[in-house]
Amino acid sequence: MSRDDGRAPDALRKITFVPNIAPHASGSVLVSFGATQVICAVMVEDGVPHWMKQQQVPGGWLTAEYSMLPYSTLSRKPRDSSRGRIDGRSSEIQRLIGRAMRAVVDLRVLGQRTVWIDCDVLQADGGTRTASITGACVACAIAFNKLLATRKLKASPLKKMVAAVSAGVYRNEAILDLCYVEDRDATVDANFVMTEALEFVEIQSSGEEATFSEAQMSDMLALSKKGVKELVELQYQAIRDAEGAAAPDQLADLAKQFSK
Amino acid sequence: MSRDDGRAPDALRKITFVPNIAPHASGSVLVSFGATQVICAVMVEDGVPHWMKQQQVPGGWLTAEYSMLPYSTLSRKPRDSSRGRIDGRSSEIQRLIGRAMRAVVDLRVLGQRTVWIDCDVLQADGGTRTASITGACVACAIAFNKLLATRKLKASPLKKMVAAVSAGVYRNEAILDLCYVEDRDATVDANFVMTEALEFVEIQSSGEEATFSEAQMSDMLALSKKGVKELVELQYQAIRDAEGAAAPDQLADLAKQFSK
Amino acid sequence: MSRDDGRAPDALRKITFVPNIAPHASGSVLVSFGATQVICAVMVEDGVPHWMKQQQVPGGWLTAEYSMLPYSTLSRKPRDSSRGRIDGRSSEIQRLIGRAMRAVVDLRVLGQRTVWIDCDVLQADGGTRTASITGACVACAIAFNKLLATRKLKASPLKKMVAAVSAGVYRNEAILDLCYVEDRDATVDANFVMTEALEFVEIQSSGEEATFSEAQMSDMLALSKKGVKELVELQYQAIRDAEGAAAPDQLADLAKQFSK
Amino acid sequence: MSRDDGRAPDALRKITFVPNIAPHASGSVLVSFGATQVICAVMVEDGVPHWMKQQQVPGGWLTAEYSMLPYSTLSRKPRDSSRGRIDGRSSEIQRLIGRAMRAVVDLRVLGQRTVWIDCDVLQADGGTRTASITGACVACAIAFNKLLATRKLKASPLKKMVAAVSAGVYRNEAILDLCYVEDRDATVDANFVMTEALEFVEIQSSGEEATFSEAQMSDMLALSKKGVKELVELQYQAIRDAEGAAAPDQLADLAKQFSK
Amino acid sequence: MSRDDGRAPDALRKITFVPNIAPHASGSVLVSFGATQVICAVMVEDGVPHWMKQQQVPGGWLTAEYSMLPYSTLSRKPRDSSRGRIDGRSSEIQRLIGRAMRAVVDLRVLGQRTVWIDCDVLQADGGTRTASITGACVACAIAFNKLLATRKLKASPLKKMVAAVSAGVYRNEAILDLCYVEDRDATVDANFVMTEALEFVEIQSSGEEATFSEAQMSDMLALSKKGVKELVELQYQAIRDAEGAAAPDQLADLAKQFSK
Amino acid sequence: MSRDDGRAPDALRKITFVPNIAPHASGSVLVSFGATQVICAVMVEDGVPHWMKQQQVPGGWLTAEYSMLPYSTLSRKPRDSSRGRIDGRSSEIQRLIGRAMRAVVDLRVLGQRTVWIDCDVLQADGGTRTASITGACVACAIAFNKLLATRKLKASPLKKMVAAVSAGVYRNEAILDLCYVEDRDATVDANFVMTEALEFVEIQSSGEEATFSEAQMSDMLALSKKGVKELVELQYQAIRDAEGAAAPDQLADLAKQFSK
Repeated sequence: MSRDDGRAPDALRKITFVPNIAPHASGSVLVSFGATQVICAVMVEDGVPHWMKQQQVPGGWLTAEYSMLPYSTLSRKPRDSSRGRIDGRSSEIQRLIGRAMRAVVDLRVLGQRTVWIDCDVLQADGGTRTASITGACVACAIAFNKLLATRKLKASPLKKMVAAVSAGVYRNEAILDLCYVEDRDATVDANFVMTEALEFVEIQSSGEEATFSEAQMSDMLALSKKGVKELVELQYQAIRDAEGAAAPDQLADLAKQFSK
Repeated sequence: MSRDDGRAPDALRKITFVPNIAPHASGSVLVSFGATQVICAVMVEDGVPHWMKQQQVPGGWLTAEYSMLPYSTLSRKPRDSSRGRIDGRSSEIQRLIGRAMRAVVDLRVLGQRTVWIDCDVLQADGGTRTASITGACVACAIAFNKLLATRKLKASPLKKMVAAVSAGVYRNEAILDLCYVEDRDATVDANFVMTEALEFVEIQSSGEEATFSEAQMSDMLALSKKGVKELVELQYQAIRDAEGAAAPDQLADLAKQFSK
Repeated sequence: MSRDDGRAPDALRKITFVPNIAPHASGSVLVSFGATQVICAVMVEDGVPHWMKQQQVPGGWLTAEYSMLPYSTLSRKPRDSSRGRIDGRSSEIQRLIGRAMRAVVDLRVLGQRTVWIDCDVLQADGGTRTASITGACVACAIAFNKLLATRKLKASPLKKMVAAVSAGVYRNEAILDLCYVEDRDATVDANFVMTEALEFVEIQSSGEEATFSEAQMSDMLALSKKGVKELVELQYQAIRDAEGAAAPDQLADLAKQFSK
Repeated sequence: MSRDDGRAPDALRKITFVPNIAPHASGSVLVSFGATQVICAVMVEDGVPHWMKQQQVPGGWLTAEYSMLPYSTLSRKPRDSSRGRIDGRSSEIQRLIGRAMRAVVDLRVLGQRTVWIDCDVLQADGGTRTASITGACVACAIAFNKLLATRKLKASPLKKMVAAVSAGVYRNEAILDLCYVEDRDATVDANFVMTEALEFVEIQSSGEEATFSEAQMSDMLALSKKGVKELVELQYQAIRDAEGAAAPDQLADLAKQFSK
Repeated sequence: MSRDDGRAPDALRKITFVPNIAPHASGSVLVSFGATQVICAVMVEDGVPHWMKQQQVPGGWLTAEYSMLPYSTLSRKPRDSSRGRIDGRSSEIQRLIGRAMRAVVDLRVLGQRTVWIDCDVLQADGGTRTASITGACVACAIAFNKLLATRKLKASPLKKMVAAVSAGVYRNEAILDLCYVEDRDATVDANFVMTEALEFVEIQSSGEEATFSEAQMSDMLALSKKGVKELVELQYQAIRDAEGAAAPDQLADLAKQFSK
Repeated sequence: MSRDDGRAPDALRKITFVPNIAPHASGSVLVSFGATQVICAVMVEDGVPHWMKQQQVPGGWLTAEYSMLPYSTLSRKPRDSSRGRIDGRSSEIQRLIGRAMRAVVDLRVLGQRTVWIDCDVLQADGGTRTASITGACVACAIAFNKLLATRKLKASPLKKMVAAVSAGVYRNEAILDLCYVEDRDATVDANFVMTEALEFVEIQSSGEEATFSEAQMSDMLALSKKGVKELVELQYQAIRDAEGAAAPDQLADLAKQFSK
C-alpha cells in the first residue's frame, strides 16, 4: 500500500520546530507535523494554585491549555469564548498534555512556581494533540534553560524528554502519524506518549465505530516506538537551535523577502 | 501478593445488577462493582439532534451523560450545576461511554430516534467509568427489548454486548478491577472496553506520574480479557432477570423489612 | 368521591424509608411517597461559608440542594449542568427545604460546621418537595446521631422533627398527598411544613389558574395536620430502624435475589 | 401596641400610583407602598414562545421579570448581569408575579401575543413582591385599555383585579403591610394574593426560624382581606387617573419646580 | 435646515435634573435630555477592589455600570441577566462613563473607598451615554457633598465638573444633541466629553457606513463646546437644587395630584 | 525630543505583512507594527445570520473577533474561554474592527455570505487594534481576490482600503504609532481609522486621567494622516506580494534554516 502523500507506512511527516515564536513567553516553539502547525508557549509564574497552598503540597504546579484558532480548520471553528465554555474535546486534550508533561517534570525541583503551557493550533491536519505534546516538551526545555541561565533554577525540572505520535489502522494496515484524511477514514486511531527511554506515559486507542485486535495493537505500538525515537532526536536538535535562534523581528523580515 | 480485600490479582470485585431501578426510563439498572454503585438509565426519544437533520445523516443518535452525586465521594463533591459547567473529568468519561456504546449500536436500525444514556454514580470506590459502560449496555439491552416487545423496533440495534474493566500496576504487579485505594496508589491505571467477542473498542492507559513498559501493558491486557469475559456472562444473566423483575415498589418494601 | 388509586381523601400514599442508601454520607435515606422516590443525604463538613465568617455569625450553617435526575420524569428532564444553571423551580424548592430544616436545627449547637442536605429525585409522581423535607429530617437525625455516637457533638442540634405534606382541591373536594395526576388536575395545590408539635413552619398555597376560598384553605389545613402526624410517627420508626440497618452491599444482594 | 411609624396594626402604608412612568411601555405605573417604590411596566409583543407553538397551545402567554436596582437597598446590591445569573430570591418572586397575573388574565382572549411584565424595584422597604403584583395589575389594565382603544383587542383579557399584601406576626401581634424593619424582626411573614372578590390566588406563609399557629394564620388572613379590599379601590382609581395622565415631560418639569 | 422638533442646529434638547430620585444612594439624579431619561445613582462603599489591595495602589476606586431597562426602548430589550452576560454596547458605554469620571475625580482624596456609579436608562431617545455622564457627575457631586457634610471627607474628590454631548452630521449639516431618529439617519455620530474648562476628556466619532472630513469634525467640535458650556451651568444649578430638594415621598404625592 | 527607539515623532514603526500565514483561511496575513504582531484571517461562509434573514436585510454580513493569545503579554493573560466570557476591552476592539471594515465593504456586492475576520494578537507592544484593522483590510483584499479568481464573486466588495494608526501626547509632544511604553505613559491616546482617500471612518481620543486641548487634537490628526498614507502604500504592496507568496511549508523550512 502506498499512502496518499507517498509516505511509507512507518514514516513520520516532515517535522519542524521554529523556536522563540512568542518572545514574551519563557520558552516557545512553532511545531509542524506536516501541515499541522501548533504554537506551544510556556510561561513560568511565581506562586502555586490556591488548592495546593491549602493542601500544603510541596513544590510547584504545571497545567496546560489547548485551543484551536478559528481559522485552523477548513470551515471556521467558533471560539470557545463565544460559546462561553471549553468544548469537551479541547478539555480532554489539554488534560492529556498536562498529564504527559507532569510525568517528566519534577515539580519539587520547580519550587513554588506554576508552569503554564499554551498550545494553540494554527493549522489542523491531524495529530494536533501529538504535535502539542511534542512541542510543549521543547518549549519547556527552552524555558527551563532560560531559568537556569538566569540562575532562577539550580537544576532543570525536566527529567527526560517526552514526545507523542499517532498510529492507526487504515485500509487494514497499521500506519504512523496520520494526516486528517487518514485519521477520518481509519478504523482505529491511537495516540502514544513516550519518554525518550521509550517507556510509555499514556496510550489511548479507540475504534472508530469499529473494533480492533491485539495484533493490530501490537503493530501500532511498534510503529509508535520508531516514531517517538525519531521525534526525540529532532526535539534535541530544536533545543540546541533555540540558543542561537533569530529574533522574531529578523524572521519576519526574512519571511517577507522570501514571499516576494 | 495479596490484595487488601483478599482478592486474587485476576479477580473481579463482586458484580451485581439490580434491573428497573428507574421505572420511568425505558431501561435501567443499578450496577455495582464492589462498593462502586452506578445508576444507568436509558431513555429513547423520538427525533434526532439538529445537526444530524441539517447534515441529513441517516438513522438515529446515541449520547451519554455521566455525573457523580454529591454524596458519592468521601468528602462532598459540589454539583456541576452549582459550578455552572461540567468538569473536565466528567466530560471525558461521558464522551467515552458514548463512543463505547456507539461501537455496538447500529444507529441505522434505531431509526430517527435519540438514545439518552444517563450514568449517575451513587457511590464511588474506583472504576466508575467501567461500571458505567458495563451497566449502560445492560440498560440499553433492556430498553431495546421493551421497544421490540411493543413492536416499535423490528430488530434490536444492539449488535453485541460491550463491557469495560480496569487494570493497573500496583506494588509492581498487574491487577484487575482496582478499588479506590488501589487506583490511588497504582503506578499505572488502564481501562479496557471490549465487545463480547473480546475485540477492543477502546484502551486508555496512563502512568500516574510514572511510566510503564510493553510487558506491563501485555499483562494488563490479559487480565482485562478475563474480566470482560466474566462481565459479559453476568450482563446476559441480568438482562434475563430484568424480564421477571420486581416492581420498585416491592423492592422498597423488601428492603424496609430487611433493614429492621 | 373515590380517588383513582382507591385512597380515602384523607389518606397518605404508602410511605417508606430505606436508611443508609448512600453510605459515604453522614446520614441518608431513600424516602418514598407512593411512586415518588427521593434520595436524601446529609454530609456535615467542618467550617462555615465565607459570608458567615466575615459577618462573625456564631454557630454553623445548613443548606440544601434539590435536583431531579433526568430519568425521574416521564420524558427526560435535561440536566441543570447541561443548561449551565439551576432552573427556577429547583431553586425555589431547595430554598424551601433549607428554610424548613433551619426552623428545627439549632445552628449554635452545631458549632462551626456546615450541614449539606442533598435531595435527588429518583422518581417523580407528585409531592417531591414534601417527600424531600420529610426525608431530609430523617437523614439529619441519622447524621446527628452518628456525630453524637462518635462524640463529635455533645447534644443533637435537631430540636424537633419536621415533616411536610401536600393537600389540594380536586374535583371540588379537599384531598391529602396528591400524586402527579391529581396534582396536575387540582384547582388548588398547597404544601404544609409542620413540626411534630403541629406548629406551622411554612404554608404555600396556590390556585392553578384558579382561586380558592377560606373554607377550602381550612379543609386542606385540617388534612395536612392529620398527614404530618402520621408522617412523624413513620420518621421516628425509620430513625430507630437506621441503627440496625443492613449495609448497602447486603441490600443489593437481597434485591438481586428477589428480582429473579 | 403601636408601630414605629404610628400605624394601627391593620393599616396599610400610604399607597400611591404614578401612571405612565415608562412611556415606551404599553402600560406602566410607579407604585409606592410607603417608601417601597417599584416601576411596573407591561409590553405586549406579537407572537408566543417557541414551546407554545410546538405544543400548539391556543391563546397567548404572560411572563414576569423582577429585579432590584443596585441602589434600591441600603448597601449596594450587585447586578444579576454582573453575577451572570438571576439570584434564587428574584427568580422565586418573578415566578410568583407571573402566576398571580395568569390567574386573572384570560390568555385565550389575548390571542397570539406575549405580555411581558417588568418590575424593577427603585427603593426597597419591605413588601416589594406585594407592591409588584399590585402595580403589575394596574399596568396590565392600562396596557389592555390602550389595546382596546386602538381596536387591537375586542375584549379585555383582564377578568378581574388582583392585588397582594403582606402580613406578619411582630411582637406577638398580627400586623398588616410590614415595612423592612418589621419584616426583619417578625417571627412570621406571610404574603396574600387575592382577586377583587377576595378569593385567594396564593398564600405564602413562613416562620422565620420560628413556627406559627392556626390562630395566627387566621389573624393574618383577616388583615390581608381588609388590605386587599383597600388596595383594589386604589387600583381602580389609578386606572381612571391614567387616562388623563400627564406626559412624563410635564412631570419632570413639575418635579423640578417643586424641588427648588 | 430645520430639525423635526424645530430646534436650531446648535440647540440642546430640554435638559432637566430631578435630584435624589433614589434615596438609598449617596447621591442620585434623574437626568433628561429631551425624552431620554436616565437614573444616575452613586453609592460609596468602604474598601477597594481586591486587585488594588494586591498591587498596593494608594487611594480609592471608581467604577460605573450602565444598563437599559427593558421598557426603555420601543420594542422590549431583553435583560442582560436573562442572557447571562452584559452586551458589548453596554460594556463599552460603562467603560466610557468610568473613564470620564475618573478624569475629574481625585482617587487619592477619596481614600480607601469605592465609588459605584449606576446609570439605568428609563427611556431611550438618543444620547443615553452623554446623558449618563452628565448626570453621573451631578450625582457624584451630591454624594461627595453629603460625605463632606457628615465629615467623612475633608475635601471633595471632584476636581471639576465633566459633561458630555453628542453631535452629528445629518442631511449634510452638523447638529448638536441628536435624538434617536436623527442619530439613526446621521452619517456621522460623535460624542464629546469635556470638563467645565472645555478641555477634552474623550472624543469618539464614527462614520455610520460612511466617512467624514476634517471640516465636519471641526464643526461638530465647535457645537459640542457650546453644548457642554450650557450643560455645566445646568449641572451647577441642579447641585444647588439638590440641597433643598423634596423627599421622594412628597414628589410622588405631587406627581399623583398632577396626574389627575 | 527623541523617542526611546530613536524614531522621529512622526515616524511609524517598522511595518511588515507576511501573507497566507493561515492557509485554511480565504485570506490571511501576519501584520507587524514593530514588536506588535497580529494574525488576521478572513473566512467567507455561505449564508447570513438569523437576524438578517428575519429582517430580510439584502446582501451579506461582516463581523470581527479579536483576542490576545495568553503569551502575547509580558505576564500571562488568562483566556476568555477559561473566564467564560469576553472581556470588555476585547469586545470594544472587535466591535471597532467590524465597524471599520463595514465602512469600506459593500455588503450588497458580497451576496448572501458572511465574512468572519479573526484577529489574534501573537505579541502585544501597543497598537494592537490599529494593527488589527490594517491587517484585516489586507486579509479581506486577499480573500476577495481569491473569490474573484474562482469566479464566486463578479466584483470585489472592497470599495477602498482602510487603515488605522495611533497617535498620542507623550512628554508634551504629539507622536505617531505609540509602542507599549509610550502608550502607558502618554497623557492622551488616540486611534484614527481612515480610508485610502484620508477620509475619517472613526476617531477615538481619550485622556488618560488627564485632558487635552483642541490644538493637541489637531496635531495628532495631522500625524495620523501621514501615518495612514504610508500604511496604505504598504498594504497595496502586501496584496501584490500575496499572489506570488510562498506556501507556509516553505516558510517554516526557511525559518528553520535561518534560525541555525
